[in-house]
Amino acid sequence: MAKGQKYDFNQVKKWAEQCSNWGKWGPNDELGTLNYITPEMVRDASRLVKDGKIISLATPFDSQGPQDGRFNRFNPIHLMLASGADAAAGTQDHIPTLRYSDDMIIMPLQCATQWDSLAHIFYDGKMYNGYDMRLVNGSGAQKNSVVNFKDKAVGRGVLLDIPAYKGRKWLDPGEAIYPDDLEGCAAKEGVKVGTGDFLLIRTGQMAMVKATGKWGDYPGGSAPGLSVTAGTWIHQRQIAAMATDTWGTEVIPNETPEVFQPLHMILLVYGGLLIGEIFDLEVLAADCASDGRYEFFFVAPPLTITGAVGSPINPQAIK
Amino acid sequence: MAKGQKYDFNQVKKWAEQCSNWGKWGPNDELGTLNYITPEMVRDASRLVKDGKIISLATPFDSQGPQDGRFNRFNPIHLMLASGADAAAGTQDHIPTLRYSDDMIIMPLQCATQWDSLAHIFYDGKMYNGYDMRLVNGSGAQKNSVVNFKDKAVGRGVLLDIPAYKGRKWLDPGEAIYPDDLEGCAAKEGVKVGTGDFLLIRTGQMAMVKATGKWGDYPGGSAPGLSVTAGTWIHQRQIAAMATDTWGTEVIPNETPEVFQPLHMILLVYGGLLIGEIFDLEVLAADCASDGRYEFFFVAPPLTITGAVGSPINPQAIK
Amino acid sequence: MAKGQKYDFNQVKKWAEQCSNWGKWGPNDELGTLNYITPEMVRDASRLVKDGKIISLATPFDSQGPQDGRFNRFNPIHLMLASGADAAAGTQDHIPTLRYSDDMIIMPLQCATQWDSLAHIFYDGKMYNGYDMRLVNGSGAQKNSVVNFKDKAVGRGVLLDIPAYKGRKWLDPGEAIYPDDLEGCAAKEGVKVGTGDFLLIRTGQMAMVKATGKWGDYPGGSAPGLSVTAGTWIHQRQIAAMATDTWGTEVIPNETPEVFQPLHMILLVYGGLLIGEIFDLEVLAADCASDGRYEFFFVAPPLTITGAVGSPINPQAIK
Amino acid sequence: MAKGQKYDFNQVKKWAEQCSNWGKWGPNDELGTLNYITPEMVRDASRLVKDGKIISLATPFDSQGPQDGRFNRFNPIHLMLASGADAAAGTQDHIPTLRYSDDMIIMPLQCATQWDSLAHIFYDGKMYNGYDMRLVNGSGAQKNSVVNFKDKAVGRGVLLDIPAYKGRKWLDPGEAIYPDDLEGCAAKEGVKVGTGDFLLIRTGQMAMVKATGKWGDYPGGSAPGLSVTAGTWIHQRQIAAMATDTWGTEVIPNETPEVFQPLHMILLVYGGLLIGEIFDLEVLAADCASDGRYEFFFVAPPLTITGAVGSPINPQAIK
Repeated sequence: MAKGQKYDFNQVKKWAEQCSNWGKWGPNDELGTLNYITPEMVRDASRLVKDGKIISLATPFDSQGPQDGRFNRFNPIHLMLASGADAAAGTQDHIPTLRYSDDMIIMPLQCATQWDSLAHIFYDGKMYNGYDMRLVNGSGAQKNSVVNFKDKAVGRGVLLDIPAYKGRKWLDPGEAIYPDDLEGCAAKEGVKVGTGDFLLIRTGQMAMVKATGKWGDYPGGSAPGLSVTAGTWIHQRQIAAMATDTWGTEVIPNETPEVFQPLHMILLVYGGLLIGEIFDLEVLAADCASDGRYEFFFVAPPLTITGAVGSPINPQAIK
Repeated sequence: MAKGQKYDFNQVKKWAEQCSNWGKWGPNDELGTLNYITPEMVRDASRLVKDGKIISLATPFDSQGPQDGRFNRFNPIHLMLASGADAAAGTQDHIPTLRYSDDMIIMPLQCATQWDSLAHIFYDGKMYNGYDMRLVNGSGAQKNSVVNFKDKAVGRGVLLDIPAYKGRKWLDPGEAIYPDDLEGCAAKEGVKVGTGDFLLIRTGQMAMVKATGKWGDYPGGSAPGLSVTAGTWIHQRQIAAMATDTWGTEVIPNETPEVFQPLHMILLVYGGLLIGEIFDLEVLAADCASDGRYEFFFVAPPLTITGAVGSPINPQAIK
Repeated sequence: MAKGQKYDFNQVKKWAEQCSNWGKWGPNDELGTLNYITPEMVRDASRLVKDGKIISLATPFDSQGPQDGRFNRFNPIHLMLASGADAAAGTQDHIPTLRYSDDMIIMPLQCATQWDSLAHIFYDGKMYNGYDMRLVNGSGAQKNSVVNFKDKAVGRGVLLDIPAYKGRKWLDPGEAIYPDDLEGCAAKEGVKVGTGDFLLIRTGQMAMVKATGKWGDYPGGSAPGLSVTAGTWIHQRQIAAMATDTWGTEVIPNETPEVFQPLHMILLVYGGLLIGEIFDLEVLAADCASDGRYEFFFVAPPLTITGAVGSPINPQAIK
Repeated sequence: MAKGQKYDFNQVKKWAEQCSNWGKWGPNDELGTLNYITPEMVRDASRLVKDGKIISLATPFDSQGPQDGRFNRFNPIHLMLASGADAAAGTQDHIPTLRYSDDMIIMPLQCATQWDSLAHIFYDGKMYNGYDMRLVNGSGAQKNSVVNFKDKAVGRGVLLDIPAYKGRKWLDPGEAIYPDDLEGCAAKEGVKVGTGDFLLIRTGQMAMVKATGKWGDYPGGSAPGLSVTAGTWIHQRQIAAMATDTWGTEVIPNETPEVFQPLHMILLVYGGLLIGEIFDLEVLAADCASDGRYEFFFVAPPLTITGAVGSPINPQAIK
């Protein structure tokens, strides 16, 4: 795992097989690593609420970013169906006394802070647990939809603040996070990453784009992120989910010229891991630094959009 | 508060003034009754997690309902930006090895389970705390947007299951819930509704439409719900938020021919109360009936859509 | 061609082969029967303008119809991006002196008056001229898009008013139009249907729904229309395009239980015929009846939406 | 009308009053200068069809341009509701034999080649003929909608190719077209601009952006176009409509710091002139240069979207 080392398709495939959870929870499973979470874990995680402090990890769903059209992802288009301005112009005068506003949204479900479902990524015609990828078609996801997680995205959250661990403001685009970084950071923070955890990994890229005032290459360009070599480490920890403050979790350019986003193949397609992206971890990181507590109660329910392969979310870290 | 009694505009206006919280939390306040929640309440509420059980209160965001075009509200239109079927047709062959799906949504923010923001309802040109309703215009809500609640919709949840209290499966369309019903139900359940609570009131209308298999008049037609006479009772309890399993919270037809949805005027415009609608309380009600515990940790974060006057949500009751 | 007779798959397939134009205009052709139109025909057709009268054949693109969700087709959603009401509320005060409105549309391209492109229908994995149907994917139509017709939908229009010919106000749902009807109607009107024509066939169903005030089963239900036996007659006439005042051109229920919309297979997939639907022929029919001239200059350009498989249109009959 | 001269608000207002057609066609008029067109003119214009040649003046309605978010205008979002790829994945196997595709569009009605309706621009709270601008609200345009033109956008087209007249490929951004240029160009081309004409004015900006391969500042930035001093010349010609190959018809930066787009105030609000924008005049200009005929039959019907303030179009020049 030397810096800058490249890995070929066969190595990725080998890791994918090592990290496979296909069949582990039965042939009909659509929950993947969320199966690791037990009710006891949820209850214990709720005890991490010490101060009653609530921190939102969502970025604004806004016409100004972060998308720029790559992968056909556009920014949210927020429109009014009725407004106070309209009411003032008399459009609601048929309604007795009350006036109201209503609004609507047009947006990719992956445009800002989001969960990827297990129907989001395919390899060799298959998605998690071996389902045919053609079950994700114009009618939505017939298997592995994000709706399966409607009452599952609750548990213990752990933040690994990698740039803080390295004494920096942010990692640079293209800079990889290796297993040693994850281990070292957890040790420094005094937390242990384990079964059923929601692991939040801060790269600082969100801080960087805020500092520059421009999203720039954020949506799909060069980015800090996990090295493909971190796959087995994550798999072995038996975490329930993972999320970062980047567009795509993984270091870009990928270390695997033959495979785009190899950890998505290893951990999502084979491992069945719930992956979150475009989280804003800035306020949480500052808070954890100030009180020294890097674990918290984590609640991030997806919307129940029938057949959806992703969901916009407003994750809550409650301390 | 006799059954079937009607009230005129002046009575509604009088109640509204009695329930007004304008200025209570300062002239710039946009949080309303969510101000009642203290960190201590959040922490204490988290201790209601006894079993680690998670219950989603969201209906499906689905093309099949419940909207029928009234108030220009349509059902969600879920569309694929990329799919497994497309990938199988070769559209992603320029990507090395990985394949993916992406999707998008077009939907009114009030189409299914939702929060109304304090920018959703106006009276006499004003919204909560006296802001001009024209601040809600084609650019969205400049004041009282639902985004203000991004880290505020967490606390103690209490369910009042009115039909269960009355020994029935559901209340009938047009049947009103009076303060005595709320008091009696709470007493029977052994809970006390108080400051900072998220009060969930089950009318059973969701059970009724499920039983018939048709939404019918659900979106805006005749419905069970709160009597306008319950306004002051709710105001005095100092609850943080209220939600029901109906389209509009209030009994329809309203008891006030001169005012459409009078409690929205009294409690939302004047009281600054967060109101939730189209909650699915069926699973929760059954669970509360079985373990006798009608209180729980409640987390229902809105999406952070800039300027939004409402938000789709997936509320979580954690017991 | 007895009334009520049914035809099996093999018969449809046989007709399709008889009516095939695959390869007729080369292996790369995407125009189909529009190839029949010569510049001379366009010039001659323009001489049919005698009075300078212009008749629009478009129905309203409106939230009130005709779609009802069948085939995932919804009615247009027309939204304001800026309005006079907004301007009055001050949202444009940063602009010197001028104020403006802007709007947008969300609509299926097949929701009202429309052209079907040659990419709209497939049989056995193929579309017109043998192109693989998977070339119509999430990226749009790579072949046979309606954009090919951007400067081709101009020529001689001919109206066959079948109910007028039969002395009735409209044909009934389920009532078929046979070749004899087409011949008889043309003879009565004194027109000859021939090479390069835009053939408009009135069934009267639009008149019927207007009379009842409800779209009812119009979008996909029982309807008057062409008998499958009319396929070869139409093919032999070498017309450029055909359009009706119905949702689907063909009589519904189809006479072919094994093939849905068999003329679409025979004439569009195999014949390469441009087909128009949901035309409002009422004003035109009245005008033709009054002046006895059933031919006119016809101009119905599609929008140039890249990759579109259909297009909303406002066809113009100019007499 | 010296190059670079600026004009103040009072001068613009004076011109507007001189060019006013308010009340000219009655207090209820919503057609404006389209009233100039008589049936005889339509018939005579049809005689300009000499060769049967059809030229489309529409740009692609495409995700790649020209909009960039200014004025909240985004590029078309074209989506498939059903596709051949889907059909291949089995989603239509419940349909006997036939397979199909369907698509939809999300787009501003002003995103590419378009008509501005008389409800598009306001001054001092009014639109053309004195209607209150608040009649254009969340319910669309109650007056002056583009739908009024559904059978009116047909007549004699005339092209003035200004850069060709000046012996250049295109005018530069910020370069104004004065009445002398219009007169001189018409004289050189041997055409006379007169009552009821559809006047197409080529600036060459479309050629410039095609040459650079980038839309750049096209949507709302610096542009060649009409000088405000051309207003009275155009008014006096009694043309029916005017269109250019630019985003906004007028020279930008405007010559009137106190009034944005002053000709829109003078000619559209006061004159009731139909204005078209983002026309692609390149093929037409080359054709006119080659045959020396700068007049033609012009047909550009708007879509009949209820309440629309603009319409995408595919204008046809037929020679």
